[in-house]
Amino acid sequence: MSLRVTFLGTSGAIPTTDRNPSSIFLRRSGEAFLFDVGEGTQRQMMRFGTGFDVDAVFLTHAHGDHVLGLPGLIQTWGFNGRSEPLVIYTPEGTRTSVVELIHAIGHEPDFPVSVEEVSPGSTIRDREEYTIRTIAVDHDAPAVGYALVEADRKGRFDRERAEELGVPAGPLFSRLHEGESVELEDGTVVDPDQVVGPSRPGRTVVYTGDTRPTHTVESAAEDADLLIHDATFADDEAGRARETRHSTAREAARLASNAGVKQLVLTHVSPRYAGNTGLLLREARDAFDGEIVLAEDGRTIEVPYPESA
Amino acid sequence: MSLRVTFLGTSGAIPTTDRNPSSIFLRRSGEAFLFDVGEGTQRQMMRFGTGFDVDAVFLTHAHGDHVLGLPGLIQTWGFNGRSEPLVIYTPEGTRTSVVELIHAIGHEPDFPVSVEEVSPGSTIRDREEYTIRTIAVDHDAPAVGYALVEADRKGRFDRERAEELGVPAGPLFSRLHEGESVELEDGTVVDPDQVVGPSRPGRTVVYTGDTRPTHTVESAAEDADLLIHDATFADDEAGRARETRHSTAREAARLASNAGVKQLVLTHVSPRYAGNTGLLLREARDAFDGEIVLAEDGRTIEVPYPESA
Repeated sequence: MSLRVTFLGTSGAIPTTDRNPSSIFLRRSGEAFLFDVGEGTQRQMMRFGTGFDVDAVFLTHAHGDHVLGLPGLIQTWGFNGRSEPLVIYTPEGTRTSVVELIHAIGHEPDFPVSVEEVSPGSTIRDREEYTIRTIAVDHDAPAVGYALVEADRKGRFDRERAEELGVPAGPLFSRLHEGESVELEDGTVVDPDQVVGPSRPGRTVVYTGDTRPTHTVESAAEDADLLIHDATFADDEAGRARETRHSTAREAARLASNAGVKQLVLTHVSPRYAGNTGLLLREARDAFDGEIVLAEDGRTIEVPYPESA
Repeated sequence: MSLRVTFLGTSGAIPTTDRNPSSIFLRRSGEAFLFDVGEGTQRQMMRFGTGFDVDAVFLTHAHGDHVLGLPGLIQTWGFNGRSEPLVIYTPEGTRTSVVELIHAIGHEPDFPVSVEEVSPGSTIRDREEYTIRTIAVDHDAPAVGYALVEADRKGRFDRERAEELGVPAGPLFSRLHEGESVELEDGTVVDPDQVVGPSRPGRTVVYTGDTRPTHTVESAAEDADLLIHDATFADDEAGRARETRHSTAREAARLASNAGVKQLVLTHVSPRYAGNTGLLLREARDAFDGEIVLAEDGRTIEVPYPESA
């Protein structure tokens, strides 16, 4: 099952000619989510062909560079006849400003839009196949990170072994794979663990939004397949990173290393590094041996299942 | 003196991959103005290198596709240390929503921003060299158009004739050019009309914003050097143009013809004509013999003085 992340905006605070303000599009199977919606997000969705069938929006915080694309996108959805409801999750204390922002289009949205406040460390979307949880972060505004955590998948079904045991192909295969014991015509009972391997882990994607490195993120990102971390600054601005409650690329990498993350994406790059982003990558590589990607607008990452990594 | 218009956004209602929502950058001598500020305007300014030294913003109306770029731009100005005050002109009845929109950045702007309501048919900026006036338009919201009208320039100074009359080169030339009579050493009096040609007209640029064709616009655009007119639809949607209080390209062209405009720019193009904008141009050419430009994002037009046209 495909799990695909497309970076729509990767700039910190203000856009550049190459980078839009923050937004990430995530598509998993039939569902699509937006994490943050910086100004110009709708046009990036058009440019990079993500589709517009977004089920839910997850805001990490209500700073302008993470939310100002919301009213225009809602207006465009209305214009295009959207009728499906939209839910927008936003940190505690920010609902009013998000609602006011939505009303900047000058009228009520043409389809149902609900804005729900979320607190750090809670499960806000609980599905059979995955959950989405909030993570406590450390920024200079009410803020959360998000983790999408897939449930374990069933183990592999050993068809050859099942046939050896005399199980006829068909419904019994399915019942065994679902974890049920079955009785054959000759009275033999076959148990699932005879033909089904151990359950296999799903994938975990973590997005921090704007934050200092925190233990809560490190814990949420343990063994994560993809960690998308604030990397606003390089070492030269480590002090400013602390003051403004952001992270350096090296700090993000150190956390990724501690958490045993498989792939790290550095994002929310300060415009001061335009043309010199290699610096961020080099400093991060010092601190983390795993795969590191410097996010770029339009870049898409297919997140593989752990065993095929 | 250069008078230059750069189209930052030329799409109607919603952006496309090629067109941003409405915004026009106008630079005249040392001053720069924005007319409408659709979502993503600041990034278009970066992309097309207009500069960020904007003195005033003129909003035609407060629909999302004309204003949603305002908070992000104000945030970026603050971020970049702007201290110069900014004045935003907006139609009567829309001040509150514009102020609320500006506050969507989550804090007071970092520099003085004033929002002033303007009524149709008034002079809102009266300078020695030009005025900016509002024009009554017909849209489904409080709305105005804008005309920038340059004052007449002094006539040409005939240096050769002045020397023939015995006027010595120097301060007397300037005084004559300024319209003063001068007395020479031998008592001869030389009058300005002996050495200065007739005053020469300045340039006029009219921008309608969203509107039906109106007599008020036709009158304001009389002999205008540049008319930038709503041309949301082609003939096939003439009924929809009436319903939604927009214009067709042909209607804009007919008005331009009646007004004796020198150059017509069609803008606010509906996304339905993406890839087929030639239709708008063909229908407009049927109705107007003058120069017609179909606006495109990034297109810059230098407005020439009438006599050099």
